[in-house]
Amino acid sequence: MNSMKIALLGFGTVGKSVYEILKGNAEWLSQKMPEAISVKHIVVRDLSKDRGVEASLLTTDVQKAVTDADVSIIVELMGDCPEALEGMRLALQNGKSVVTANKALVAKHGLELFELAKKNNCEILFEASVGGGIPVLRALREGLSANKIHSLMGIINGTSNFILSKMKSEGASFEAVLKEAQDLGFAEADPSADVEGHDAAHKLCILAMLCHGRVIDVNDVFVRGIHFIRPIDLEMAERFGYVIKPLGITKLHGDEFEARVHPTMIKKSRPLAHINGSLNAIYYEGDFSKEGMLTGHGAGGHPTASAVVSDIVELVRAQKANSGLEPTGFLPNALKPTKPKDPMQIQTRYYIRFSVKDEPKVLACLTSILGEHNISVQHLYQHGKNDHDEIPVIVFTHTCKEQDVRDALKKIDAKDFITETTKIIRIEDDEN
Amino acid sequence: MNSMKIALLGFGTVGKSVYEILKGNAEWLSQKMPEAISVKHIVVRDLSKDRGVEASLLTTDVQKAVTDADVSIIVELMGDCPEALEGMRLALQNGKSVVTANKALVAKHGLELFELAKKNNCEILFEASVGGGIPVLRALREGLSANKIHSLMGIINGTSNFILSKMKSEGASFEAVLKEAQDLGFAEADPSADVEGHDAAHKLCILAMLCHGRVIDVNDVFVRGIHFIRPIDLEMAERFGYVIKPLGITKLHGDEFEARVHPTMIKKSRPLAHINGSLNAIYYEGDFSKEGMLTGHGAGGHPTASAVVSDIVELVRAQKANSGLEPTGFLPNALKPTKPKDPMQIQTRYYIRFSVKDEPKVLACLTSILGEHNISVQHLYQHGKNDHDEIPVIVFTHTCKEQDVRDALKKIDAKDFITETTKIIRIEDDEN
Repeated sequence: MNSMKIALLGFGTVGKSVYEILKGNAEWLSQKMPEAISVKHIVVRDLSKDRGVEASLLTTDVQKAVTDADVSIIVELMGDCPEALEGMRLALQNGKSVVTANKALVAKHGLELFELAKKNNCEILFEASVGGGIPVLRALREGLSANKIHSLMGIINGTSNFILSKMKSEGASFEAVLKEAQDLGFAEADPSADVEGHDAAHKLCILAMLCHGRVIDVNDVFVRGIHFIRPIDLEMAERFGYVIKPLGITKLHGDEFEARVHPTMIKKSRPLAHINGSLNAIYYEGDFSKEGMLTGHGAGGHPTASAVVSDIVELVRAQKANSGLEPTGFLPNALKPTKPKDPMQIQTRYYIRFSVKDEPKVLACLTSILGEHNISVQHLYQHGKNDHDEIPVIVFTHTCKEQDVRDALKKIDAKDFITETTKIIRIEDDEN
Repeated sequence: MNSMKIALLGFGTVGKSVYEILKGNAEWLSQKMPEAISVKHIVVRDLSKDRGVEASLLTTDVQKAVTDADVSIIVELMGDCPEALEGMRLALQNGKSVVTANKALVAKHGLELFELAKKNNCEILFEASVGGGIPVLRALREGLSANKIHSLMGIINGTSNFILSKMKSEGASFEAVLKEAQDLGFAEADPSADVEGHDAAHKLCILAMLCHGRVIDVNDVFVRGIHFIRPIDLEMAERFGYVIKPLGITKLHGDEFEARVHPTMIKKSRPLAHINGSLNAIYYEGDFSKEGMLTGHGAGGHPTASAVVSDIVELVRAQKANSGLEPTGFLPNALKPTKPKDPMQIQTRYYIRFSVKDEPKVLACLTSILGEHNISVQHLYQHGKNDHDEIPVIVFTHTCKEQDVRDALKKIDAKDFITETTKIIRIEDDEN
């Protein structure tokens, strides 16, 4: 039986797992594909390391692997680096289809890569780039293709969800839980991409492409990390019926849509509120499907490889080029670069934590500045003194505008009675 | 611009919603498909009824609509009737692709219809047949195609979930809630297909095809309904940390798999336990993806039509026949008729509710018969007398075999102290 040859660029955790599935489930996969798959090249940086595969498969030469006339699918798993982008470009220019898990490169260079694929009669698929083993891109591209997605909210960074879940269940500080997550291997030594929201921002760009058919610059995504969250915030959330989740959000308003990543308070009764630990979940509201949610493992070698191999299977099934596959589900000329809605105009509810000195008239001053900026207070709560004679004052607002909140906090934070920059968490609930 | 013509067979709630999406989202859909879609025929039983569409579209003639050379896609939404099956056969024989929401006909005649499609170079898709608007079939066919699905448990009948959820939240009887569901339009006047599990059994057959590539007879699915469940069962479940859910279950054991539909106790901490009301959810464990869940609306015109239109979009995208689409994701010669594992050999834990007279030695007799049949008791609980001098005795067992439970209950139910046939609910938890 003929077999379709593939080249793996990168052989880390995901690359090894892809190889493991192709070997371990080979007979199973043969029931699903008209042609078998075999790995012809594995591109690595260092040939001297023992990787438990035949040495003849290994090479350091991206160009050789990618341009081999025998090879028809290139699987790119090198991470966000110039070699990965060059490898994909070269593959597509040579008419080889690409499967990638690279959220950063798809978010930043997607449009160029899609056009290159189209021009050279090949395909690019990237199911593993968002939500790991959860088949969320296929759901948006195909299963929900009849719908305008009015709203999508996703827990798309497992590390942040792990940290906030643990902080909640153990009452521990951000720093303590981050350390624990690093020791367990859930968080990177440099956790900034995860906890500052940049990883999620790349994924949200990809989700926005598939939801709206619009391509946005990752720098236009409004991004806030979770590093400022303290146990008191989780406690206050709990007291008022909320949970804090690290969300990527895109909402459609006519021709505009929002694109933002930030820790968010959501009602405990919402399905996303039950997604704990390092699990990912994507909640959506389509105009006809109504609401739904997909949950599963968003990272790890096996789940990510499950998505990579599903893309390989789809390419083998489609076999010939031009089989009707569109990487985003939108036709090439429908897919347009655009900007998300101005974040300053976004309206939502806010949780605000002020740290103030215990002085008279502080509350009056706070509330009058809020009032001047059209910020209407729903609850105000003084938490009692802490060790340093500072008092946290907690405010839950009604719906107001980001710009107004910024302006008010700028004025307030300039006051002498403020002991620490004011912190805010956005709230998504029925009032928005 | 050319348009691809479709014929709708049936114009009930789902048919009308399909028409509404194709009209209402036409401009949106044009961004996703290389060709527009227009409805050429709508087949109805009664031409005299006003349906709010141009009269020229309506016809009672299935044959005319299906064999029209202009029409390339037939959308069958007539329900489980001979005309629907005949319509699909005729369509496929004439090389027209079929989209259907018909779980009963796909479960019973799937293999024949798939072969007919293959032979005539056309396609048959049926996303709407399971889980309504949830893109679960596509997830299994494509997004999870790399995986063997070790276990799948689904809430795939919304009416049953609605009834059990309401019984739990209101402490009401099955009969009272069923009546309420019927008044609200959630349950049919004849609710037997839903509450007795037959609707779910058809859906489970389809899920088993997509998970395992095996075709089973719906009569080989082990089926129990929810009609015997009483408030005391929900109360006992709650007390021991469980929730009762109406599940369709298929588990893989080597070359064999189970296929069963029954009310099931699951731990409150499991994701399925939070799916209430008429929502559907499918929880799966793949060998590489690990566990995941898809949730959403399993019925209703709009969600079901969302799935139907997604299939239409996929067919228009694929355009030409032989584009690599396989209706189940398995190659034709891989898809085999088979039998599920003998239900009598299935091992699980059980909740058993005995109704006994308040007499001495009853407990000793019960426990000794259970022991003789290798049924080991985890908890035994006497609930106190009810009005009729009957006592419910509740037993939670360790893992045991269905056959042993049957044999034991046969003996026990023959005893004079038994006042009502003993009721059982299967338990799925970590011990199985």
